[in-house]
Order: sequence, then C-alpha cells, then structure tokens
Amino acid sequence: MAPGVSAPLHFPVTLVVLLSLLGLAVGGKLLVVPVDGSHWLSMRQVLDSLQQKGHDVVVVAPEVSLHIKPSKNFVMKMYPVPFTQEGMEKDFQAFLQISFEEGSFLTRFLKTYEGMKRLGELSVLSCEWLLKNQELLRYLQESQFDALLTDPVVPCGLILAEHLSLPSVYFLRGVPCGLDFEATQCPNPPSYVPRGFSQLTDHMTFFQRVGNLLFDLPNVFLCDFGFQPFAKLASEFLHRDVTVLDLLRQGSVWLLRVEFVLDYPRPLMPNIIPIGGVHCAHKKLTQEFEAIVNASGEHGIVVFSLGSMVSEIPMKKAMEIADALGTVPQTVLWRYTGPTPPNLPQNVKLVKWLPQNDLLAHPKTRAFITHGGSHGIYEGICNAVPMVLMPLFGDQMDNAKRVESRGAGLTLNILEMTSQDISTALRTVINDKTYKENIQRLSDLHLDRPIHPLDLAVHWVEFVMRHKGAPHLRPAAHDLNWVQYHSLDVLAFLLFVLLLSLFISFKCCLCCCRRFCGKKGRTKKAAKSKTH
Amino acid sequence: MAPGVSAPLHFPVTLVVLLSLLGLAVGGKLLVVPVDGSHWLSMRQVLDSLQQKGHDVVVVAPEVSLHIKPSKNFVMKMYPVPFTQEGMEKDFQAFLQISFEEGSFLTRFLKTYEGMKRLGELSVLSCEWLLKNQELLRYLQESQFDALLTDPVVPCGLILAEHLSLPSVYFLRGVPCGLDFEATQCPNPPSYVPRGFSQLTDHMTFFQRVGNLLFDLPNVFLCDFGFQPFAKLASEFLHRDVTVLDLLRQGSVWLLRVEFVLDYPRPLMPNIIPIGGVHCAHKKLTQEFEAIVNASGEHGIVVFSLGSMVSEIPMKKAMEIADALGTVPQTVLWRYTGPTPPNLPQNVKLVKWLPQNDLLAHPKTRAFITHGGSHGIYEGICNAVPMVLMPLFGDQMDNAKRVESRGAGLTLNILEMTSQDISTALRTVINDKTYKENIQRLSDLHLDRPIHPLDLAVHWVEFVMRHKGAPHLRPAAHDLNWVQYHSLDVLAFLLFVLLLSLFISFKCCLCCCRRFCGKKGRTKKAAKSKTH
Repeated sequence: MAPGVSAPLHFPVTLVVLLSLLGLAVGGKLLVVPVDGSHWLSMRQVLDSLQQKGHDVVVVAPEVSLHIKPSKNFVMKMYPVPFTQEGMEKDFQAFLQISFEEGSFLTRFLKTYEGMKRLGELSVLSCEWLLKNQELLRYLQESQFDALLTDPVVPCGLILAEHLSLPSVYFLRGVPCGLDFEATQCPNPPSYVPRGFSQLTDHMTFFQRVGNLLFDLPNVFLCDFGFQPFAKLASEFLHRDVTVLDLLRQGSVWLLRVEFVLDYPRPLMPNIIPIGGVHCAHKKLTQEFEAIVNASGEHGIVVFSLGSMVSEIPMKKAMEIADALGTVPQTVLWRYTGPTPPNLPQNVKLVKWLPQNDLLAHPKTRAFITHGGSHGIYEGICNAVPMVLMPLFGDQMDNAKRVESRGAGLTLNILEMTSQDISTALRTVINDKTYKENIQRLSDLHLDRPIHPLDLAVHWVEFVMRHKGAPHLRPAAHDLNWVQYHSLDVLAFLLFVLLLSLFISFKCCLCCCRRFCGKKGRTKKAAKSKTH
Repeated sequence: MAPGVSAPLHFPVTLVVLLSLLGLAVGGKLLVVPVDGSHWLSMRQVLDSLQQKGHDVVVVAPEVSLHIKPSKNFVMKMYPVPFTQEGMEKDFQAFLQISFEEGSFLTRFLKTYEGMKRLGELSVLSCEWLLKNQELLRYLQESQFDALLTDPVVPCGLILAEHLSLPSVYFLRGVPCGLDFEATQCPNPPSYVPRGFSQLTDHMTFFQRVGNLLFDLPNVFLCDFGFQPFAKLASEFLHRDVTVLDLLRQGSVWLLRVEFVLDYPRPLMPNIIPIGGVHCAHKKLTQEFEAIVNASGEHGIVVFSLGSMVSEIPMKKAMEIADALGTVPQTVLWRYTGPTPPNLPQNVKLVKWLPQNDLLAHPKTRAFITHGGSHGIYEGICNAVPMVLMPLFGDQMDNAKRVESRGAGLTLNILEMTSQDISTALRTVINDKTYKENIQRLSDLHLDRPIHPLDLAVHWVEFVMRHKGAPHLRPAAHDLNWVQYHSLDVLAFLLFVLLLSLFISFKCCLCCCRRFCGKKGRTKKAAKSKTH
C-alpha cells in the first residue's frame, strides 16, 4: 500500500479487536452439530480456532460416538441414544470389513447395502433421540445462538437449524448423491464434471460421458435411500412437509473441502468456499516417533494408515501386505491394531496410532500408503509425499483416481492386489522421480494461497454469525422452478411466436397468391368470354 | 491456531521473505498492457502494490493517452501512434457528449454507433502501431517477463501475450458482449443472470426473461463489431487464423471487479477471482478540502462527479442541476470544468478535480451524485454513502439499476430529468433513513472479508508469475465443443438406443402375436376342416 494511504476500514473486525483489547466479551455463540468419524477430525480444528477467537462453541453429540469427545475448547452437550458403544462399533467394523470380503458383485452389493442401511438407521435413531430430548431442545432454544455449523451429510443439524431459526454454515466434502449441487443451484455439466463414485476424471471419452450422465439415475435412489428417513423425521418434527433438499437450500455458506490441485475445476457459486487442506497444520514429532524416523537412515520412512476407522484387516491380506513392505529399504510405520502378521519384516513397525500429518511433514518420509480418504490425501499433498492408494469405500475410489490422474500416486485394488503389486507400486512411487515431482508441483500450487483455508473457514463462520446469514450470496435461481431456470417456458414461447409468425406469413402469402391467381383467373375468364 | 501447532509452510512465500531479508532480488518481471480511462485508475493501484513487493513492472502504452502517465513505480514504454492528443480528446468528448444530446432513438443510436466506431478505430490503430514497432517488440522479447497483465476489453494485450508466449492475468469489470462467460466456460443462465446493458435485475418477470434471452442476439453483433478488427490484426500478426475468443480463453486468472453486495450472485469458475472494491483505499483529505468539509456545518457535504472522463456538460443541463443543488442545505462539491452556470447557488463549489474517495470517506458526506461508473459506485459502497445516479453510457445504466435495486440510491434519466427531479432525489437519499441504512448494510457486508481485494489481486498476479500460469484452475470444458459440452451427442445417442429398444421390443411383440395368432388361425382352420 502506498505511503500515506490508510488501510480500508474493516469496521466489524476493528471493533472486535478494540473490544478484545479492552477485555470485553466479543465472541458470538455457535451451535455445532457434527458428524462422527473422520468428518469430525477436521471440523474440530475450526472449532479450536473459533474458541481461540473468543466465541462460545457448543457441540451437540450423542453419548455414543467414535471420535467426538469433550474438549476444553467447547461445551459438549450429550444426549442419550438407544444403542451401545459396542453395538455401534460392531456395526461400523462389520461395514468396513465388507471392503476386504471377496465374492460376486451382487453379494458384495447386497452386503454393502445392508451395512449402509444399518449405519443409516443408527444416524436416524440418534437424530430422533436428539429431537425428542425436550430438555436439551429447551436449553438450545434459550441459548440464543448466532449460527449453526454442521456437516449436512447427516442432515440432523439442518432440522435443528430450521427449528431454532438459525442461519447455518455447512462444512463438508460433498453430499454423496450430488444433492449439494442442486441445493446451491450450482451448475454441474455431466460432460466434464465427473459424478461421485463414477471413478471418472474430467476428461472423458464419449462412452464415459454416457456413463457419467447415466450416473445421475442411481443418485436419485441414493438420495432417497439416504435422506428419506430424515425428511420423514423433519416433517414430523417441524409439523409440515419438508424434504432434505428444502432444508439444504437454507445453508448460508458452504465450506467445501475441495481444492483444484486435487479436485477437477468446475463451476462454483459465491457461497461455496473451497477450503481443501483446511486441517493440514502439523506439529513437531514426539520424541518416540522422531527417534524412529531418525533411525531410518538415508532411506527414510513410509507412512501406512488405512484411516481413523480401519485399523485391522483380515490376516491373509495383512500377511500379503507385510510381505510386500519387506521389499523396500525404508522403515515402514504401519498403523495396525490387529494380531501381528507372522511374516512381519524387520523394517516394519506396527503402531496402534500414529501422528500421520506430522510424520508426512518430515523430510525423511518417502511415501504414504493410504486408503484415499480426503483428509489423508490432502495431508499427502500439503507435505508433497507420493502415495500408494488402497481405496476401500465411499469417495475413496474417486479420490484415488484424482491423485493417480495427477501422476502423484498409484492405486491398488484392495481385493485383487498381490504382494508383488504392492511392492511394485510402492517402489515405483519412491524411486520414479516423476511421482515426487508431480506431488511437489501440486503441493507448491496448493500452499501458494492468499489466505490459509483454516482462516477462511473461521472467517465465514464468523461472517454468518455477525450478519445472521449471507443473503447477498444467495442466487435468485432459488426462486425459479426447473422449467423457469432452464428457460424452457421462454423457449416454448419464442417457438410459439416463431411458428405463429410463419403460419401468419404463410397464410398471408397464400391469400395474396389466391387473390392474384383468382384475379388472373377472372381476368382470363373475362378475356376468354370477350373473345367468344 | 493451537499452541505448539506450527503454521503450514508456504514454501514460495517463505522463500521470498527470506531472500528479501537477505537483500536479494526476489521480484518477478511483469508486462502490463493497460486500457486507458477509468480502467487504468484501479489497475494502477495493483501495479503500485506489485512494485512495493519487489517486482519490476513495465507498462506499454501509446504516447497519446487520457490518463496513463509515467510513474516512479514502473518503467513506461511508450510507442508512437498516428493520431494526436487533441484529436483523440476531441473524439472522446464528442462521444461523451452524445449522452446529453436529445433526439430520436435512431439518431442517438447512429451517433453512438459512429462514436464507438471512431474510438474503436483509435484502439485498433494504437494496437497496430504497437505490433509493428519492431524495436519495442524486440525489447519485450528480450526482457523475459514472467507474466502479462491486461484489461481484455481492448484485446491488444492478448495478442502480445500470445506472441511472447506469456501467461496472462486479466483485470476487468467484464467484456461488454458477454464473451468473458464464453471464454471462461462459466455458466450464465439467462433465467436469472441479467445480460449487460439490459438494465434487468436477477429477479425477472416472464417477459423480462424473454427479453434477457433475446439480449444474446445483439451481443453477437456487438462482439463482432468490437472484436473483429482485433481478430483480423491478430491473425495477420500471428500468421494464423485466430479469434478474440481463442485469445481470451488463454487467460490464466480473471481478476473480475465484481462483488455480490452490488452484483447479483451467479456462478463463477475457479480462475475467476472477484475483486470488487479493489481500489477503495483512501487517504487523509488535503487541508484545502478538509477546510471546505469542516465549514459545511451540521448538514455536511454532497460529492458530485460524473467521472474521470466527463467534467463538462451542456449549459442548459448544468443550470438545471445548479438549480436543484441550491435546494439542499448541504455544501455541494461539484467536479466541473465548464463555464460556471450563472445560477450557481452559494452552497455549490465548483472544482476542477476532487479526491472523490477521500471525500466519500469523510463522516460528513451525506450523498454522492455519480454517473454510475463501477469505480465510483464501489467507493460509495465502501464508504456507505447513499447515491443519486445519472448514468451516461456503457455499464453505468446496469450499475445504477443494481444500486437502486438494493435500495441504496435513486436513478435519474440524464435527458429527461428536471431540476425538480434532481432536487427530490437528492433530498430523498439524504433524508430518508432507509437509503443510509441500506448502503450501510451493503458496506458492512462488503468490508467484512477475509482478505482485502487489493491483496487478493496482487497474490494472483504473483501466483501466475511464480507458476507460469494456473493450469490447475483451467476447466476441462475448454476441450469440448458446444455439442459435447451440453451433452447433446450423449442425449441423441441415448434417444437412439431408447427408440431402437422400443422398435425391437415392438417388432418382437408383433412377431410373437403373429406367431400366436397364426397358430390359433391354423388351429381354428384345422379344427374347422375336422368338423367338415
């Protein structure tokens, strides 16, 4: 800025700073309805930052959960649910293990369907128990929150936001059946925006484009399967017919964990804020891990984790993997809680937990074996570590495809991969310099940003809290129906006008011709009669 | 950020800071091909910031220009052109004065057309002389720039970027005929995205939507009228057939001077960076103006300017305006270089130039009378000053409509307005509190942003310089033709498959029926013959 030029005034921000200097309360009050599992892990970092900025954060979660635990950074309001921790964990593990089970497509499809149905039922049950918890609802009503932050993939928070008339901020990777595009009115051309679970890239052949367009059909059923129970619950609770799409459309700001070094460039709406890599801050390694890494010598280490939810795999698979890991000179740190494979090589260390991002940030890390969860992949990108991907379920196949299409990793099929395949893939990403070069390029692009995605996320949550929403970012498309949005009524009208004009012109011409011909006919007749 | 958590590494940025601390050259080299007039004024601020960050900035401009003058902040490379300063200024003034001339629509349309044609010819001529200036081209070639910054509304910079194989950053308010949407592959639904010059809002009636869709037709001619001469020039210079759209598509990043407190929310692409209000930094008032403002007493002041290009208007109009200005108790500061109207009231001070943004930032400023240029309007929004708008040409009518639709100002028709209309409008925006409330709300929303648009603009110019473009932000849609993009080939194929399936099913049914009926017939016949 030129000397003498004062910075433009950011009134609310300036005020906040001034008041906080005076020791006065400046924070707002945020209600958070999180989603369990890895979804929670990155959201928690945003909550920590919000708390540090002086806001009161209240998290509402069921008493039974995988990762959502109380913290000094927020008030935790827990509500009872009619299932036990053991029961839920058993259901989760049963679902996760399907990825390792061989069998026909139909058998696996049916098992997956049953597993998803069971987990879905738990979500709905949990939401139902939240909404009928009168005491908790009364507390929430009386607390006068400024906004609600939720991951809409489980739309329980949406129902609560509607009930409490709170503006909401969504924090998500995406909605599985593509309902996020519809809810934000964001264009989504099937010609180059690959559909979820299609494993397609943004460059498709003709038949891939046919497949991508047809992918919208099962999505309709997926939406229905996943969201219909919540729509029923919402309609009963809010005493009016309401769909999950209706609720989703109310979102003020969508903090989307995408970024275009990984995800394919596509249209966005002004209230969609890409915050991919939001959770990539890393700490110094603990002494224990620092010692392991330093002992790895010139070859360095490989980090291996199948995510926060999968820490145990069938013994046969574990032995195949162990076999392959023995073929590289690197020390492999493997997060694994199952029984130790008898063939575990010397260079592999099993750990019950590992500081994944801190390890990836270490310059001695040569490769990352991952299940392809979006969090892990962004950590790989942030720290420029080439990846071997073993996707298991959900969006992991798509994520793996993205990394592979960028030349930054290799994907293996968890069911079909042999020990040799794993070994070859791992040695390739470590020794073939192009993988490191490609991930380094992605990393450089990803980290060269005007503002850190965590600050961006915090800003937009605060924005919605300060202004009670963000109506100026809401496109007018929300007020149009499908026919109007696509101008089909206008086109039909113009076609009608065109056809009418043509018809009238034709009729006029015909009339003129007839009159002219008739005159001529009459003249001829008259002439003829004269000659007679 | 939690204690002990180190900030994520921004390698290039960290490197730049380190090197600059060591006193080593860290800057890149930027070539700038600006557009004259108000377009230049905000771009200059970005250049000042870039220079302060250690970059070498070289501006290429014709010797004859309205506002582009040498500065200590950049190297100015001027090239001769075959027209004089006086000639050009005369042409400009002639064009600007058309706005004040009464007459039939056709007369005014033809005059505007002629005026635009003349100014267009000057632009093309200037570009032609740049491209045939061998010495300058050799210098540019040898200078090894990292990137080129230009306003593509005059596509001369685009031709130069292509010739020098430089990645380019565009800095613009928009391309008049909507070619920016096509060039960025940005969806632009006519159902709620009003077309340029249509004066429509994002909420349209059915017939307004018909009109908006039909507005795309004259845009085709406007594009052709404005850009065909440049396409011809580019094709000759680059020795291959090239259109302006082809060149525009090469833009790495589009710094678009839009923002959604003023402009209507609509889809964006990842390489479109909204930087509306980029130029809103203000300085302290000079003693001269501070004294005038302070002398205005409790009523404060009104700022009146028709922009950097219009400082003189016909006497009849000036007298009408002067008359109206006398009816308010505020002191009016009017930027005006013409002969003093004989009826000039006591409270009106004519000045040859005024520090518009610094005056608007003064708490005593009550209203802003403006022609509705985007710069002025953003200054009005930044400083929360209600506006009376007198749009003259270009996008000013649309801008005025936007302010009016937000309830932050009133628009007058420069030709039809009477002294009474001006007085009423001015007094309304000053005395009716809703105008101040609305502009204050817009201002609060506009200023509450995670990063200042000037820093955002500077970041993205530097990004393109550092990475030689931003290919990861380029949508794959660029590789599809119109039919493919809209999936028309896929839909045709699916329709064909559907019809073929129906046809085959129908044929099969027919065949079965025939066989069945035939058998029945034969059976009947056989039965009949047996009975005989």
